[in-house]
Amino acid sequence: MVREIGVGMLGYAFMGKAHSNAFIKMPRMMQQIPAIPKLVAIYGRTEPQVKAAAERFGYKRYYTDWRRLVQDAEVELVDNGLPNNLHKDPCIEAAERGKHILCEKPLAMNAKEAEEMYRAVEKAGVKHMVAFNYRFVPAIVLAKRLIERGVIGKVLQFRGAYLQDWIMDPSFPLVWRLRREVAGSGALGDLGSHVFDLARYLVGEVEAVMGLAKTFIEERPLPEDPSQKGRVTVDDAFISLVKFRNGAIGSVEATRFGAGCKNLLRVEIHGSEGTLVFNLERLNELELFERKGDAETQGYKRILVTEQAHPYIANWWPPGHIIGWEHTFVHEIHHFIDCIVNDKPVAPMGATFLDGLKNNQILDAVLRSAETGRWEQIP
Amino acid sequence: MVREIGVGMLGYAFMGKAHSNAFIKMPRMMQQIPAIPKLVAIYGRTEPQVKAAAERFGYKRYYTDWRRLVQDAEVELVDNGLPNNLHKDPCIEAAERGKHILCEKPLAMNAKEAEEMYRAVEKAGVKHMVAFNYRFVPAIVLAKRLIERGVIGKVLQFRGAYLQDWIMDPSFPLVWRLRREVAGSGALGDLGSHVFDLARYLVGEVEAVMGLAKTFIEERPLPEDPSQKGRVTVDDAFISLVKFRNGAIGSVEATRFGAGCKNLLRVEIHGSEGTLVFNLERLNELELFERKGDAETQGYKRILVTEQAHPYIANWWPPGHIIGWEHTFVHEIHHFIDCIVNDKPVAPMGATFLDGLKNNQILDAVLRSAETGRWEQIP
Amino acid sequence: MVREIGVGMLGYAFMGKAHSNAFIKMPRMMQQIPAIPKLVAIYGRTEPQVKAAAERFGYKRYYTDWRRLVQDAEVELVDNGLPNNLHKDPCIEAAERGKHILCEKPLAMNAKEAEEMYRAVEKAGVKHMVAFNYRFVPAIVLAKRLIERGVIGKVLQFRGAYLQDWIMDPSFPLVWRLRREVAGSGALGDLGSHVFDLARYLVGEVEAVMGLAKTFIEERPLPEDPSQKGRVTVDDAFISLVKFRNGAIGSVEATRFGAGCKNLLRVEIHGSEGTLVFNLERLNELELFERKGDAETQGYKRILVTEQAHPYIANWWPPGHIIGWEHTFVHEIHHFIDCIVNDKPVAPMGATFLDGLKNNQILDAVLRSAETGRWEQIP
Amino acid sequence: MVREIGVGMLGYAFMGKAHSNAFIKMPRMMQQIPAIPKLVAIYGRTEPQVKAAAERFGYKRYYTDWRRLVQDAEVELVDNGLPNNLHKDPCIEAAERGKHILCEKPLAMNAKEAEEMYRAVEKAGVKHMVAFNYRFVPAIVLAKRLIERGVIGKVLQFRGAYLQDWIMDPSFPLVWRLRREVAGSGALGDLGSHVFDLARYLVGEVEAVMGLAKTFIEERPLPEDPSQKGRVTVDDAFISLVKFRNGAIGSVEATRFGAGCKNLLRVEIHGSEGTLVFNLERLNELELFERKGDAETQGYKRILVTEQAHPYIANWWPPGHIIGWEHTFVHEIHHFIDCIVNDKPVAPMGATFLDGLKNNQILDAVLRSAETGRWEQIP
Repeated sequence: MVREIGVGMLGYAFMGKAHSNAFIKMPRMMQQIPAIPKLVAIYGRTEPQVKAAAERFGYKRYYTDWRRLVQDAEVELVDNGLPNNLHKDPCIEAAERGKHILCEKPLAMNAKEAEEMYRAVEKAGVKHMVAFNYRFVPAIVLAKRLIERGVIGKVLQFRGAYLQDWIMDPSFPLVWRLRREVAGSGALGDLGSHVFDLARYLVGEVEAVMGLAKTFIEERPLPEDPSQKGRVTVDDAFISLVKFRNGAIGSVEATRFGAGCKNLLRVEIHGSEGTLVFNLERLNELELFERKGDAETQGYKRILVTEQAHPYIANWWPPGHIIGWEHTFVHEIHHFIDCIVNDKPVAPMGATFLDGLKNNQILDAVLRSAETGRWEQIP
Repeated sequence: MVREIGVGMLGYAFMGKAHSNAFIKMPRMMQQIPAIPKLVAIYGRTEPQVKAAAERFGYKRYYTDWRRLVQDAEVELVDNGLPNNLHKDPCIEAAERGKHILCEKPLAMNAKEAEEMYRAVEKAGVKHMVAFNYRFVPAIVLAKRLIERGVIGKVLQFRGAYLQDWIMDPSFPLVWRLRREVAGSGALGDLGSHVFDLARYLVGEVEAVMGLAKTFIEERPLPEDPSQKGRVTVDDAFISLVKFRNGAIGSVEATRFGAGCKNLLRVEIHGSEGTLVFNLERLNELELFERKGDAETQGYKRILVTEQAHPYIANWWPPGHIIGWEHTFVHEIHHFIDCIVNDKPVAPMGATFLDGLKNNQILDAVLRSAETGRWEQIP
Repeated sequence: MVREIGVGMLGYAFMGKAHSNAFIKMPRMMQQIPAIPKLVAIYGRTEPQVKAAAERFGYKRYYTDWRRLVQDAEVELVDNGLPNNLHKDPCIEAAERGKHILCEKPLAMNAKEAEEMYRAVEKAGVKHMVAFNYRFVPAIVLAKRLIERGVIGKVLQFRGAYLQDWIMDPSFPLVWRLRREVAGSGALGDLGSHVFDLARYLVGEVEAVMGLAKTFIEERPLPEDPSQKGRVTVDDAFISLVKFRNGAIGSVEATRFGAGCKNLLRVEIHGSEGTLVFNLERLNELELFERKGDAETQGYKRILVTEQAHPYIANWWPPGHIIGWEHTFVHEIHHFIDCIVNDKPVAPMGATFLDGLKNNQILDAVLRSAETGRWEQIP
Repeated sequence: MVREIGVGMLGYAFMGKAHSNAFIKMPRMMQQIPAIPKLVAIYGRTEPQVKAAAERFGYKRYYTDWRRLVQDAEVELVDNGLPNNLHKDPCIEAAERGKHILCEKPLAMNAKEAEEMYRAVEKAGVKHMVAFNYRFVPAIVLAKRLIERGVIGKVLQFRGAYLQDWIMDPSFPLVWRLRREVAGSGALGDLGSHVFDLARYLVGEVEAVMGLAKTFIEERPLPEDPSQKGRVTVDDAFISLVKFRNGAIGSVEATRFGAGCKNLLRVEIHGSEGTLVFNLERLNELELFERKGDAETQGYKRILVTEQAHPYIANWWPPGHIIGWEHTFVHEIHHFIDCIVNDKPVAPMGATFLDGLKNNQILDAVLRSAETGRWEQIP
């Protein structure tokens, strides 16, 4: 008989929906079920919305005070999908109460906060994971396998860019993601954090970064009163040079002003024996070039990552029946619950709070570098 | 308060899983919920498997006799995902008991059967739909909208090909899909039926077809005893010429021997003012060429069909966060339940049993034509 | 010391320009030069134009009567780039005078003419080639090599389509290519002949065809007086089913109404062990899928056919420095002159008049079939 | 009557071949011919090779001393295709003798040399151009037109990468391009110079750069004695951050270790109203995204830049009949000869020695920055 695990969800909007969907699907679709998520409680500030979300997704109760959720005895796993400035306190308090924690990325507003959080979860001895869900894209897992197997040899160059275009209209309002006090940073923390996580996951630790940040539109209408404008205090775009500890070099960038790029996370990794290319807008595909073999038939191979042999795919559909963005969350929470229930290590498959801390250290260094105009070392 | 609708599912394998997933997701994810599917019962021949499926997906009970399911008073909607030779009897009996029916494609083994089924559901006055789920791919719905809006002008040519490669290995066994008495036909009914449905949906009624069918591997190991071989009695591939009533011409083909093509359903429609191209392996994309505008900037436009303005997308994720093959079923059962609950017409958005009948008439004509070597008229 | 070979060119327009360019480039760019083309004479009906062409390309003299060109003693190689109704007589008369002949495709207005031509060149003992230049695309030569090497196993299916859109505007005039008495047929002879030649080159002899032809715009303005209209007497598009003698099946089609398709010749060949895909609009690329190898890394490989190891490329530029459409003619006339000078066989690399005859037999059969509605056998 | 212009070519290898081909083709293929190149002389160090080249391409004479070529009275235009350390002296001496000069890129070993050269040609009053041939790719010219027309609005971000892989094999010898004293720099000067030129051409002047350079293989076999190794003294790869004077930001990079990338020069330009994407391996194509228009049909448009309306194409072939890399040189020398003969300004269409100087200033700044670890201003 499969046991249940009580889930408490912080936030009901974008991430709340994506995670709830995953909790519901996981036990119905995955072949191996470590535990069945029991949707205990969901938190949101505004009662009508959080109540509706609880009903829709099937949470037993809802709270408008996050403290009550993290104190709920039936909750074993707290999933924090709140804005970045509400990562630290709920996570730490949940840890202190012995809850396992899945927290959205970036882990914290800055490395200092992240370190506090990391210490708290370690001290509490709970399982902790940062929701870097792109680690759970089958094509990315395949890329990691191929790199580890030496298929592209020693990694020499990494080129990662995450391009979106959703705030290009100057009349787009000053939402929380555009305010430093809530978001910490802009494209950097929101999108760049994903790229840096993939860089660490696929290539290795970062030694130093050199960053350039830009805000193209400096004032925007206030959401609460569009006749008034407020200052955008985060980056609209950043570009950074990266030195890895293993000698590889690369660039990482992100923008919210890449017209026509909706969710274009492109990762290109050149190794001494080959190249891997991934694009999130076509997340079922991975491109591979191998230098081996005869010159006549070398070429970039487009692998449709939908075979039973591919990571996670045996849980889903026959070859060529593609999966979507939301499936990454199913894999992610499956992994985390498996780690909790069967006491497995979250890393290196998933990102722990230590990974989240290292990620925040890089983000901080990029921001510092953008101000100093110099290379900044990662601790 | 949203009402419930009792669902009875026939079959628990591939389609059983895809449809059950859709019944579960629909009320949790769609913005408008016509009714909440209540998973009443599921049917399968072998008890341990159907029992496990019932538990996994949350059906209240299971049956190993389909008659009991269609007689179940709590079941309002029968969803028939059984092999093709088990479409007719359960559908007719369900209709006679006043159940609404969603039936997998092709509707029947042949047009004669389909006609019986169509008469039965019409007589019973129940809602009926054939599960041609590709009508519910957002890119296909967009294509239909654009055609209706005149964006590509008068349709002149249609080119549809559905290519898979899953039985290329000669040691692949003689499964039910390779036996005429169970499947009716091979690539034709399984894959070609989808293409002909899209042809009718997007272009119009078919006047005549001219077919060519081929079985590349004529004998295969028996599943029950691989040391013995049995005869493949269906087509491995077919190609057909098509004349539409509106004057357009085209070709429709399908194969299970297209090496490297996993689920490659490609539709190309040339009109007097433009062209549309769709490929199921990249189902979030639609290509559009428009003759209008200046020659300097004409070109094929790749539309990423993930905008809020696109069909069904507002129910899902932000732009560029792609959906998968399974989402088509969510849209499909949403539509059917909406038609049932709010007494809306299933067509032209969905395929009724009349569409299923016309589809079977075309399939029959292709097979006849492959034997006579002549054009066969569609009634 | 490299010898010279006297060239007489019939026609100065599209093909005259493409061939003249090739005669000029060949000895300057190819590593091995069988003979240096001496541009002796060019023929055209209208004196000012043919005179200007002679000057531009460097022909020593020009004629406004083709008979004088084929009688010119200094001409050893007659290159016939005239409209289709002017293939037969000049070719036969040139052959009778012992000239080697390169003739544009299709070889003749019909198989009857083609047979006369074939007999004449064979009787005369001259070298003869039909200008099916796509046999000389490096990617196509590579495809042939790979097929012969067994890389895709036994060929099962062929899918060839040649799509253009240059006459979609109803005000486009009734040029010679739209009149049966000059062109023989429309998209069929102009574009389809190329596809059928590639089908024979890459797959094998055709056993029977079943054709469907369509004229979308039946009347067009006369070029000489646009206020008057004349009847289009050729096909705007055709689609055909094909049975090959070796058991493969396929389809061949062409259209001049494929909006957005400028010169899109797409060839897809499925074999028992793999697939090859080619597209003329990206003629430096060849796609290859191989079934062998582990399932995890199978995929369509895009081969950039610009390596020194690739056919003809060593004559040109470093890898990735792509060549264009015109280069096919350089390869083609290089081959033909090599065959003449060194008495090598034109086939199977090039298409002889026998290949041209077989090609015309197929074209005739498609037209007949489009009228009879039945399969037509190829002799 | 079209006049002639005497051409003297320095170098007979890669660039000598590409330029000679262009001089030969230009008057035969271009509709407007400013002057017919008369191939007067070619220079090379080793007599047998330069003699053979002279014969092959049709130069009247050859020299093994470049001074004699630049002194040749019949030479009006000196085309310098020698290694980078042989750009300065021949160009200056040619200028002093009143020759017009086309010089391969990068203009010089460094900005100091480039400035001398620029002063010399200005003083002499001759026409001067740097052979940044990618300015003459039709798709690039079209991109420039569209930017100037405001189609993508104000340029915000530029992303340029030039990726090759020809020296990845450690046994590849220490050729001149890998030695700083001959080449000046590695991937930076050879490939990066092209990208920076396109950046200036399409976006505007560069204000500052921040560079990172890397040599992956530090020792290689000597060409003259492979048993001995010598030190690689140039960069194998570099990546740089770029600030433009107009406020745009971007990155420019190049590598010779991008496995599978043969000649992949990718340029992506994001503006406030749209995006342009170009890839040299598919140089007949340009991708354009426009924010205007309804959300339903927005998308990246693939423009096949082969229409008569497109830059330079009217000189070549019908739509879809693609041109190759070599054609850029035909356009380039056509432009330069047109400027000479008709006294037109070389800029902004072509790159003058002033552009070459500014290009060298940027290259110098990248190298300096790679050492200092700081942003370097461009004068």
